[in-house]
Amino acid sequence: MDLKSYLKEQCARVDEALDQVLPKENELPHSLHKAMRYSVFAGGKRVRPILMLAACHAVGGGSQQAIPAACAMEMIHTYSLIHDDLPAMDDDDFRRGNPTNHKVFGEAIAILAGDALLTEAFKLLSDPRFAAGCSPAARLSVIQEIAACAGSYGMVGGQVVDMESEGKSDIDLPTVQYIHTHKTGALIKAAVVAGAILGGADEQKLAAITRYGAAAGLAFQIADDILDIEGTTEEIGKDAGSDQARGKATYPAVMGLAAAKEEAGIMMDEALRALEIFGDEAEPLREIAMYIVKRKN
Amino acid sequence: MDLKSYLKEQCARVDEALDQVLPKENELPHSLHKAMRYSVFAGGKRVRPILMLAACHAVGGGSQQAIPAACAMEMIHTYSLIHDDLPAMDDDDFRRGNPTNHKVFGEAIAILAGDALLTEAFKLLSDPRFAAGCSPAARLSVIQEIAACAGSYGMVGGQVVDMESEGKSDIDLPTVQYIHTHKTGALIKAAVVAGAILGGADEQKLAAITRYGAAAGLAFQIADDILDIEGTTEEIGKDAGSDQARGKATYPAVMGLAAAKEEAGIMMDEALRALEIFGDEAEPLREIAMYIVKRKN
Repeated sequence: MDLKSYLKEQCARVDEALDQVLPKENELPHSLHKAMRYSVFAGGKRVRPILMLAACHAVGGGSQQAIPAACAMEMIHTYSLIHDDLPAMDDDDFRRGNPTNHKVFGEAIAILAGDALLTEAFKLLSDPRFAAGCSPAARLSVIQEIAACAGSYGMVGGQVVDMESEGKSDIDLPTVQYIHTHKTGALIKAAVVAGAILGGADEQKLAAITRYGAAAGLAFQIADDILDIEGTTEEIGKDAGSDQARGKATYPAVMGLAAAKEEAGIMMDEALRALEIFGDEAEPLREIAMYIVKRKN
Repeated sequence: MDLKSYLKEQCARVDEALDQVLPKENELPHSLHKAMRYSVFAGGKRVRPILMLAACHAVGGGSQQAIPAACAMEMIHTYSLIHDDLPAMDDDDFRRGNPTNHKVFGEAIAILAGDALLTEAFKLLSDPRFAAGCSPAARLSVIQEIAACAGSYGMVGGQVVDMESEGKSDIDLPTVQYIHTHKTGALIKAAVVAGAILGGADEQKLAAITRYGAAAGLAFQIADDILDIEGTTEEIGKDAGSDQARGKATYPAVMGLAAAKEEAGIMMDEALRALEIFGDEAEPLREIAMYIVKRKN
């Protein structure tokens, strides 16, 4: 398969759906809706929604039925970026080459735009307009999975430990593993698990997809750490080397660059092995796992 | 009925359940869970959860089945208070006589504690451990109602307009109505509607409870505006007169104190009228509506 075309097509599908489900700028409050849309449409690669659609497809589902949940996933990811960039957190002025939400709309609206994106995501996940093709019980499971992976035992927990570890010289591997599996890994795992549930996966397939998601999620974040060192500012859309400058807890910082690269490869292999029970229908998931480790941005 | 004892008992039930469902402080990340619990247990009156239990009871449900959702409602309310108090928003140092979350834990943790409480609320609403006595379809409806009332067309939207109206001299009644029905009213309405759905209400009862919730929610906020003027700092746990000092858009500011009091009474009457189809089982809802308008804190 031609991964580049596939990603481009899926990205366009997700963007179109996001435009439809997000609150409109001409609806009150205009400033809030403008801020929400600004960050959602600030050039994301839609990795999580595309993974969700691919997982749904892999287990034999029609990926159309996962589109609203895929949008919800991107809204949750976007809220987390808006809040992470705030002055009280990472204090970033740019994200993907654009001014961050609070630089454009002010801190108060940025906080509220994040809050609203998170809340609207759960509204979308429970929206009766998108009930076709999926039982209420399965939809509840999807909400459970996503909330668990985004909450205090998932993404938010990872962000807290990441923040508290910054600048400390004695961070060990288990701490970096905790940060990565929680901060980034959890939501990526949730994306594929939710996609598989929406696609009607049986227990065996769901277990395989879960294993894939955990490995791919960790690989993604290790690759991100490596990119921060090896990528150019232009490629990655933010200052290259910023993790190191801040004393961030990363894989290369703890185990060295070569070992981190090896670890990313091991995780990619683990993700591919998890998919052995699938045929061609899991080809997009396989290609994405390889892309995650080899990407340049 | 003895409302004081009733509220005390229900408050204790909700507090006990909250203690059970909230992440424990000895679980990672400790600082986050400590901050979440700090604000949840900072002396709230549990108005929204108690209303939810009372609405569930009014339509003939066993209120036990609404307890987890009642906790979720209080978690969402608490997240909104933590974020409202932030320096970038209302910049409040005290809430109910205690230092606000960011004063104790710092801004970053306060933002994340709010995010986590909101997310964990949706985790609780979809938790399979609390599935007994309620169909998955009804639970999805509850999530939909709560997310809609808490999101950009509800509570967050109200907070944005409230903030943007602060200090403006030309705020009109429709704007104040928008702020109050969205910022406070929406979540109170969601509480009773969700309680009624969980209690198995038929269409007629659900419509009556919805009407009650809209009126009681507005009455609650107008009464709050009045208390800010007439209450003492000790009674209300924050600086009396602070709305006026900030140029907040309130009912008394727009229509005068006497007319605001009259409006609160009208809303209370409307709430009571909505309950005419119910018998004794709605007595707690009636008493709470009267209490909302006459309370001193």
